[in-house]
Amino acid sequence: MKARVHVMLKKGVLDPQGEAVRHALGALGFEGVNGVRQGKVIELDLAEGATEATVKEMCEKLLANTVIESYAIEMG
Amino acid sequence: MKARVHVMLKKGVLDPQGEAVRHALGALGFEGVNGVRQGKVIELDLAEGATEATVKEMCEKLLANTVIESYAIEMG
Repeated sequence: MKARVHVMLKKGVLDPQGEAVRHALGALGFEGVNGVRQGKVIELDLAEGATEATVKEMCEKLLANTVIESYAIEMG
Repeated sequence: MKARVHVMLKKGVLDPQGEAVRHALGALGFEGVNGVRQGKVIELDLAEGATEATVKEMCEKLLANTVIESYAIEMG
């Protein structure tokens, strides 16, 4: 089964990568880009029977730095 | 309005970052992780009236390297 994890910097944490993208889009002539946040998406191919609780544990232990990042899990 | 872009390496393109995560999960004792792919997620805060076509142009010009990466756009 598949699981997808989104890891984003928490609100209030400076995102220089997103800021660089916003700047570059402006330089390319795209107007009206008010903000950009960049994060990670991790697609896991898991053995059948894996639970969301297991994926949550993976996030807490490895995939996200919960001091500055939040994560969201999609199973299926 | 918000748009979210997922950028993933195309199938067949080696993903050393994902492979490292798979390896690390195994080392932490998580079993049954058959594969991991890691990509980027970019959240755009756009002025009202922005269209998917504009976001597609952003992807083609800046956000994705379409030689090795595929992208998916979610509006709303």
